[in-house]
Amino acid sequence: MTVKVEQIQINSERLNAHLQELAEIGKIGETGVCRPALSPVEKEAFKLVSTWMEEAGMSVRIDHFGNLIGRIEGKDRKAPVLMIGSHLDSQPYGGRFDGPAGVLAGIEAVATLKEQGITPDRPIEVVSFCDEEGWRFNRGLFGSRGILGKLDEGDLKRKDQDGVTREQALRDFGCDPAKFHESQYQPGSIHAFLELHIEQGPVLDKSNLPIGVVTGISGPLWWTVKLKGFAGHAGSVPMGMRQDAMLGASEITLALNRIVQQEPGAPTVGTVGHVQVFPNSRNIIAEEVTFTVDLRDIDQNRRDQYEKQLRQEIEEICQKYQLNYEIQEDTNSEPRYCADWIKEIMHDESKEMGLETPELMSGPFHDALMLSYACDYGMIFVRCKDGISHNPAEYSAPEDLAKGTELLYRTMRRMMSVN
Amino acid sequence: MTVKVEQIQINSERLNAHLQELAEIGKIGETGVCRPALSPVEKEAFKLVSTWMEEAGMSVRIDHFGNLIGRIEGKDRKAPVLMIGSHLDSQPYGGRFDGPAGVLAGIEAVATLKEQGITPDRPIEVVSFCDEEGWRFNRGLFGSRGILGKLDEGDLKRKDQDGVTREQALRDFGCDPAKFHESQYQPGSIHAFLELHIEQGPVLDKSNLPIGVVTGISGPLWWTVKLKGFAGHAGSVPMGMRQDAMLGASEITLALNRIVQQEPGAPTVGTVGHVQVFPNSRNIIAEEVTFTVDLRDIDQNRRDQYEKQLRQEIEEICQKYQLNYEIQEDTNSEPRYCADWIKEIMHDESKEMGLETPELMSGPFHDALMLSYACDYGMIFVRCKDGISHNPAEYSAPEDLAKGTELLYRTMRRMMSVN
Repeated sequence: MTVKVEQIQINSERLNAHLQELAEIGKIGETGVCRPALSPVEKEAFKLVSTWMEEAGMSVRIDHFGNLIGRIEGKDRKAPVLMIGSHLDSQPYGGRFDGPAGVLAGIEAVATLKEQGITPDRPIEVVSFCDEEGWRFNRGLFGSRGILGKLDEGDLKRKDQDGVTREQALRDFGCDPAKFHESQYQPGSIHAFLELHIEQGPVLDKSNLPIGVVTGISGPLWWTVKLKGFAGHAGSVPMGMRQDAMLGASEITLALNRIVQQEPGAPTVGTVGHVQVFPNSRNIIAEEVTFTVDLRDIDQNRRDQYEKQLRQEIEEICQKYQLNYEIQEDTNSEPRYCADWIKEIMHDESKEMGLETPELMSGPFHDALMLSYACDYGMIFVRCKDGISHNPAEYSAPEDLAKGTELLYRTMRRMMSVN
Repeated sequence: MTVKVEQIQINSERLNAHLQELAEIGKIGETGVCRPALSPVEKEAFKLVSTWMEEAGMSVRIDHFGNLIGRIEGKDRKAPVLMIGSHLDSQPYGGRFDGPAGVLAGIEAVATLKEQGITPDRPIEVVSFCDEEGWRFNRGLFGSRGILGKLDEGDLKRKDQDGVTREQALRDFGCDPAKFHESQYQPGSIHAFLELHIEQGPVLDKSNLPIGVVTGISGPLWWTVKLKGFAGHAGSVPMGMRQDAMLGASEITLALNRIVQQEPGAPTVGTVGHVQVFPNSRNIIAEEVTFTVDLRDIDQNRRDQYEKQLRQEIEEICQKYQLNYEIQEDTNSEPRYCADWIKEIMHDESKEMGLETPELMSGPFHDALMLSYACDYGMIFVRCKDGISHNPAEYSAPEDLAKGTELLYRTMRRMMSVN
């Protein structure tokens, strides 16, 4: 399925040039980026991106949470704002597209609006949220939590690897934590939120489709499971006398894999990605194995049911191998669904564009997750090569980004009117 | 089954007192010992143990490999020596019994012989071999390899954590590597070797039996297996598109466990004790898992057959999960059997003592492994609590050590005559 050129109204060349130019700021290697939140490098990126916001007719500010916000006024200046956003900070060993694609697509959509001489009914804001990635202070979604009054007690005291607190980093960036309240959005002041993001998964790439409509952000259930057996010499403890924590961990890992695939076609995923063994010696039977469980589903009921099954299996497997176990729940987030009416607009418009756009669950978090607690939201995913992200090898083709941005533009146009 | 007091000829109290006194040298905590090879602490232990050797009528020397050797002459001074030995060096966080039990039991046996006014036909030597444990220079069985001319090219250049070479440590200990040849034993000069050692496993303890006769030292097959899949976000890669190295590692771990238990009652053991995951992040699918395989059996044919099965399973499992794999063979030792005629003597004598002595395979190495290449050998295992070893909690009861030492004494008496 191809898109006719006349159906693309946004300026793909400009968008691509912006992405290229931005990628020079914090560049590592040929294609990598390291752009830490609240760093001089991010500030430089903000300056560059501000010029593009201004060219698109927006007034620009950096709020006290370190968010970069461009705004065009609507005919009704007091109408709830249509917000479009993502982030300009990157992973420490990151790529060019995770974050910037969404911010620059938003700017491109507004620039196209301006070029077409259209003034929206409601104000539109394009936002780069502060510290989405979260690695610098080990807690992310800072800017999007900030504007919604959802910061945690210790958020400002968190330190980076050099001992700099987030509070200090904010001040160095020109922000004033004492004035956070001035930067908060009141309930009802945001009409809806849109975010374009690279998929960070292989579904579109394997399906050979450029863009997808997101159904929601799945809530992860995160556990740390600790199994305790009994160490012993690998050569001198007969198999029948062992309490080998590694056998328990292996069987639980396979059980999780089996449980999440019970319903063919369901998007449920389950992963054991982190394993730590004690004493981790080749000739000593594992006394303790600590591993993580990551269980995600867009369907909370199904996830709850699978959690129950997994708990039951862990109990049985630990009895079988004579292990003690502890399950620590680290995170338990609910799925947050995209608004049906926004998905409908997206499907309508992509049909108009001659595109087949499948629905996808988002496994990873995005700023949209926070915004979902303040307003309806919609998300567009853009195909990325081999599903690779959080890596310099991350890549989305200019023509795919153009299609995603065009859909964002069209969706924005349908959502900016005041009924 | 109890042993009548009159059947114990060795002096259990003296043996126990020696063990207690020796445990003060390099003592850590209440019951632990840290006595590194070729250290001033080991030298101090050698001095103390030398006095006991001399009290037992032995002449004492430290050879150029750092072995402590006590010797009583036989009626035939030129007859091949009956050697009894173990080691006085300990694990860094070790116990009181692993090693010293065998050396002090040997001295006690010779002391008993002297008290009974008996002169053996052949010379008897009691040896504390240098650096059995191997952690200081990351290669053990040094003294027993040394006397048999089995040192490796780089043995002397190996460094400890402080950068001290083994060569320097030997010199500091009073040894002269240039004179190694003077300390070697010529082929045929050792009649047989006996070693008493704590079991370092749970078999005797669980069977509620004080001592056992060793069938042989099983040869371990040691592999490092590396599985390579493809990393991806734990939330965004559908289950069907994954190449999760952790699933492969889990299934191989369980396959090994199943394979080694095919023959009920066989002493085969298989262990995955070391696992390393990359990138080892809770929300990233494991790209690489590297793990060890430890496979031991006293039956080389059976072990070879199981190795073949495991290779086949690894191939199939990696195909199933679309993983690449490498198997690196780190060690491939053959089993070394104890001499039937020595086992027979041991069984005869323990029957005489009214003891039920089961036969056990030794999983761990001992100095006896090296000696097996020079002469016939036999080993006696003494029960240790819960099978714990290489730990300050290591414990063997005085009455069990007395029984083991009595059997060593009786076996020695039967083996010291020249036919």
